[in-house]
Amino acid sequence: MVNALTTNAPSGGIEFHNVLIPDQKDFEVKLKPLYTGICGTDRGEVNGSLSFAYNQPGYNFLVLGHEAVCQVIDATENEYGIKTGDYVVPVVRRPGNCVNCRIGREDNCSDGKKNEAGITGLHGFMRDYFFDSPGNLVKVNDRSMVREAVLTEPAKNVMKAFEVFDTISKRSIYQNEDSTFAGKNCLIIGSGSEAFIYTMMAHEYMFNVYMTNRHTLGESKLSILEKTGSIFFDYTDNVPLKGIDLLIDTSGDPATIFKFVRMMNNNGVTILFGTNGKAPGTQVNGEDIDYIIERNICMVGSVDGAKKHYFDALRYLEKWGHSQNSVINKLITGTYSPENTEIFLTKPEGEIKSIIKW
Amino acid sequence: MVNALTTNAPSGGIEFHNVLIPDQKDFEVKLKPLYTGICGTDRGEVNGSLSFAYNQPGYNFLVLGHEAVCQVIDATENEYGIKTGDYVVPVVRRPGNCVNCRIGREDNCSDGKKNEAGITGLHGFMRDYFFDSPGNLVKVNDRSMVREAVLTEPAKNVMKAFEVFDTISKRSIYQNEDSTFAGKNCLIIGSGSEAFIYTMMAHEYMFNVYMTNRHTLGESKLSILEKTGSIFFDYTDNVPLKGIDLLIDTSGDPATIFKFVRMMNNNGVTILFGTNGKAPGTQVNGEDIDYIIERNICMVGSVDGAKKHYFDALRYLEKWGHSQNSVINKLITGTYSPENTEIFLTKPEGEIKSIIKW
Amino acid sequence: MVNALTTNAPSGGIEFHNVLIPDQKDFEVKLKPLYTGICGTDRGEVNGSLSFAYNQPGYNFLVLGHEAVCQVIDATENEYGIKTGDYVVPVVRRPGNCVNCRIGREDNCSDGKKNEAGITGLHGFMRDYFFDSPGNLVKVNDRSMVREAVLTEPAKNVMKAFEVFDTISKRSIYQNEDSTFAGKNCLIIGSGSEAFIYTMMAHEYMFNVYMTNRHTLGESKLSILEKTGSIFFDYTDNVPLKGIDLLIDTSGDPATIFKFVRMMNNNGVTILFGTNGKAPGTQVNGEDIDYIIERNICMVGSVDGAKKHYFDALRYLEKWGHSQNSVINKLITGTYSPENTEIFLTKPEGEIKSIIKW
Amino acid sequence: MVNALTTNAPSGGIEFHNVLIPDQKDFEVKLKPLYTGICGTDRGEVNGSLSFAYNQPGYNFLVLGHEAVCQVIDATENEYGIKTGDYVVPVVRRPGNCVNCRIGREDNCSDGKKNEAGITGLHGFMRDYFFDSPGNLVKVNDRSMVREAVLTEPAKNVMKAFEVFDTISKRSIYQNEDSTFAGKNCLIIGSGSEAFIYTMMAHEYMFNVYMTNRHTLGESKLSILEKTGSIFFDYTDNVPLKGIDLLIDTSGDPATIFKFVRMMNNNGVTILFGTNGKAPGTQVNGEDIDYIIERNICMVGSVDGAKKHYFDALRYLEKWGHSQNSVINKLITGTYSPENTEIFLTKPEGEIKSIIKW
Repeated sequence: MVNALTTNAPSGGIEFHNVLIPDQKDFEVKLKPLYTGICGTDRGEVNGSLSFAYNQPGYNFLVLGHEAVCQVIDATENEYGIKTGDYVVPVVRRPGNCVNCRIGREDNCSDGKKNEAGITGLHGFMRDYFFDSPGNLVKVNDRSMVREAVLTEPAKNVMKAFEVFDTISKRSIYQNEDSTFAGKNCLIIGSGSEAFIYTMMAHEYMFNVYMTNRHTLGESKLSILEKTGSIFFDYTDNVPLKGIDLLIDTSGDPATIFKFVRMMNNNGVTILFGTNGKAPGTQVNGEDIDYIIERNICMVGSVDGAKKHYFDALRYLEKWGHSQNSVINKLITGTYSPENTEIFLTKPEGEIKSIIKW
Repeated sequence: MVNALTTNAPSGGIEFHNVLIPDQKDFEVKLKPLYTGICGTDRGEVNGSLSFAYNQPGYNFLVLGHEAVCQVIDATENEYGIKTGDYVVPVVRRPGNCVNCRIGREDNCSDGKKNEAGITGLHGFMRDYFFDSPGNLVKVNDRSMVREAVLTEPAKNVMKAFEVFDTISKRSIYQNEDSTFAGKNCLIIGSGSEAFIYTMMAHEYMFNVYMTNRHTLGESKLSILEKTGSIFFDYTDNVPLKGIDLLIDTSGDPATIFKFVRMMNNNGVTILFGTNGKAPGTQVNGEDIDYIIERNICMVGSVDGAKKHYFDALRYLEKWGHSQNSVINKLITGTYSPENTEIFLTKPEGEIKSIIKW
Repeated sequence: MVNALTTNAPSGGIEFHNVLIPDQKDFEVKLKPLYTGICGTDRGEVNGSLSFAYNQPGYNFLVLGHEAVCQVIDATENEYGIKTGDYVVPVVRRPGNCVNCRIGREDNCSDGKKNEAGITGLHGFMRDYFFDSPGNLVKVNDRSMVREAVLTEPAKNVMKAFEVFDTISKRSIYQNEDSTFAGKNCLIIGSGSEAFIYTMMAHEYMFNVYMTNRHTLGESKLSILEKTGSIFFDYTDNVPLKGIDLLIDTSGDPATIFKFVRMMNNNGVTILFGTNGKAPGTQVNGEDIDYIIERNICMVGSVDGAKKHYFDALRYLEKWGHSQNSVINKLITGTYSPENTEIFLTKPEGEIKSIIKW
Repeated sequence: MVNALTTNAPSGGIEFHNVLIPDQKDFEVKLKPLYTGICGTDRGEVNGSLSFAYNQPGYNFLVLGHEAVCQVIDATENEYGIKTGDYVVPVVRRPGNCVNCRIGREDNCSDGKKNEAGITGLHGFMRDYFFDSPGNLVKVNDRSMVREAVLTEPAKNVMKAFEVFDTISKRSIYQNEDSTFAGKNCLIIGSGSEAFIYTMMAHEYMFNVYMTNRHTLGESKLSILEKTGSIFFDYTDNVPLKGIDLLIDTSGDPATIFKFVRMMNNNGVTILFGTNGKAPGTQVNGEDIDYIIERNICMVGSVDGAKKHYFDALRYLEKWGHSQNSVINKLITGTYSPENTEIFLTKPEGEIKSIIKW
């Protein structure tokens, strides 16, 4: 028996209770979650709006949670060097047998036959302890960053998205005549935790970085953005930038996406990242298609990330955590106990990332 | 004075008459068009629906024509080896000064400051003779293919589009586990000349090739498709294929595009190529964005092609022209005289490509 | 019992005799070789100089032969559409379990645990009949090219080498300012069958194509080269070209390779392809390393090719076979019977490719 | 008149004296060097062994120095935002007009018609002050890193080399089956400042990192290596690693290079970076060429870096400077005054990087 936060996928609900999940002792590592993050996907599962979620076969419930940092309680010797006492982040997606899954790129799964812990057919990490294979764990070396490492999972999505950008921007010369991206504009739609991580990564590429939303931001968020050198604007009010070279959407809202696609510069790239299946439709017409073609614009969906991207994410989080004007610790805006299930139902004011302490 | 087919861009109209264009003797090569092709862009200019077209500065008219095969009447010696008597295809786009234009990739122009002969600010090729630089000419080596070489200009767009595909498909393992594309599905929307060239190129990549439109095709077009091993379907009737790996749109119609984007396989690529600014809008909603993201789907506009693609196009046209079951000569469905300006106003029944003989 | 040409790898020898190889009926296709090609690898095995060759486990001999075109005598229904009566080329390398083998790229095998028919641990194709899986067969669609299809196996190596070139040349802008390779020089060292196929492929890329060797060529070879528009020179005599952009070695001779590496242009690529383990050494000094670094020069080995490259090879052979001034059929300079084993011991005067008719 | 450290290229010599260089007032920024680094190139110029060095046209001397961090003394307003008081690193190479130079990639110059400050035809940075364009300056944002920023110039070469590696490693699946490089071996030949920077970058890629030389290292260097998690071995003694996936040479010594090329794993990449024109030759034979081909090994020269790489270098130096166990400040092993010209003639014991304080 283990204490766990569960839902009944896809219909929804949330419960913190004692459930029976037999120990998977063929998995060599026993893990205790220290912190788990809550994101829109978790809330979607709980309110029943995530139609593709499903319980682990053989269970009438699904343990929630795919963002976690854990401590190794017990580990048999393994080739990955994972040892008792280590701090680790578990990988969410587990491979099927397609050509991409075979080479560790289940984020690019060709046939959809993969699983995602806490989302599709596999219990998640919001429980007192669980077992896993050492190959699914990414070690946190910098012990001063254990709490912040809960951001690794969302950050790995950002790493993958920029890998996609790197490939796609090779269609033409995307850089300036001085070989850099200096002066190019990156606009990020949305103001959640992943939007903030996108701004930090866009600065690494030397973009001028803008964030937008349909409302203004609170003092705290604005102050974080300012420290990173980014500019926020409420797009219902005014739009201070002239052309966009890299557009990243974290909202999933078609109307907002196409509003800004119509401002893309030649050879521009739009990364579609945020999902909101219930977002209302918007009209796309012949002139929009024209605009995209005449400027060689690319719109590309990017989902998940590979183990490689978890490592990249951790490296960047450590870098940002130790940099001047670090804002990483401020991205965690609230810490809750597992009993407090209300946090899955109502998003706290000013939330960037809410986490649960186990 | 020279006989030319002109319009008044962007308001439209069509006239075949004698106009005054001073000889550009700083251009080293004098050219006589043999055949010029007519496409949707020409008709758009004539009926006044191409808002971005404009006259050559200093003229109150624009000579039409960007698809041509010409003979060299007179040439001074040049580094490109262009000689009197040669058959050549002139390049349409002329570079500005952006980073892409500087390296011969004006098809990827970053700032839009390029010109297009017969379309934007530069007289086209539908006239008795004109002057050009040898660097703007692509030689037709195979004299049995001179008439078919008029298809080089549309075919070069196809070459560029597949270059874009080559880059974008490197995001993940796109090939099958046997390293080929065998069994993957390519769907081409539309049934004009470029749609046919796309089918031929898709076969080179080993795709299963489908063409679709909102109506059925005449006997002649169906027979050409059959010879190339492609399958046509009227999508208002039924859709015989299950998933799409490469979708190429030549219609510019948003409703049709998104109808089929919703059938894309994981890691699929949609090339947006056809433009129709007057096409009615379609609704794109949150679930469409979701679908694109969860499958890592990419939608990318591709316009024009570089000199490199003209050479590639000619090589493929020659290959296809000499292959078993060649259909290349059947793609030219009608030959007209310049006096017959009616051809710009009404598309003949069963047209794939109409050309003018000079 | 089956008639076969065998050796005893790696010690050598050649015999045409009746041997016992049990029918592998778990393989769905029965094949009869029509033509098999002889290359330096076969001769190396026969004269005992190929140290890495070894017999198929369980046999004290190895059936020779990795270049073949076969007819399907019997086939059960299969997903690859291989049918009785079809002409096919069998693939040489068979995958192990590394990340490259898993995705059909055994040509890039990471751990060396693959097999090669007729070379390393797997009986080859020089026998009256054999069995194989349909997935290992590449269909020859153009029945007028069946004999020439025996060149598919060597040609697939050329396709892979150019794939490698395509990747490596993306380090910088390798194209001219007009986006093409026009005016760039490709030099091919050696004058065997693969050297000739390399010249043809280099022309597809628009290189100025040169071939060289340490002796002059006979009339017949010179005439073939001339038809393809290539230039030959005897490098012991003079070297007519100034700088090299793409150097392809088919000789395996270090002294010749480094002689020409010292003539590479900036950003140049050298493909190492030909092997000759017994070739004498040459001195490489600090200035050679300097030269390579200061010019960003790349030297890269390329071995074998994937199934994809067999298809590409066949497509190009068909194209070249149907082109004006085709020389493909002239590349086969002699046809022999299997009894005539002398052909493995002595290279005939003027040989490009010698084949065995079964 | 300005105090400067000069040589007479290419014959050599070193002098610190007052020379006349008219102010270049068309350059908008006046700069005062704070620190300049000394490297093998400077010593090669001084001892007359760098045959390709030459004086700036119009002068019978060349101001030395290409590694510098400067302070802006005076700047007119400019689009790069360079202001009086800023700390900056000046770029070394200045473009010609080839396709690579045109897009800011003079590090990939196609025709060799570029200049390098302090080396080829352009006065360097070892003087009391000089003028430059703001586009040639890279700003140091982190004021706690000003002294360490003198390492930006050597580090930018490392960034370029890894860019080359990124491109070349795409020939095949180079990653492990878990999508990372974990467990792959990188060996760096040499133990100078760039070798140390290479080790740090190789760790970012998750390689197991080894450094080697023909002698053992002093305590101090060994302790730095240990802190970065790298392993040193004296290759005249023993070689503790089995296979090499990435080999980086900073020695320019052919015998050492080929010793380790013979230990490369399949699909391995060798970066040639260090130059030593006077290094003795080594024998390369047929079996070496064989080895390279059968394993798809690549050897590639990499020189210089673009402005982009200066920015990348600074970002990594800042990251490493702020990380746990930082060793960056220990890479600077000695600080000298410009009068002390002896430092150009004799390399101090245990030197990693010697710098001059202005």
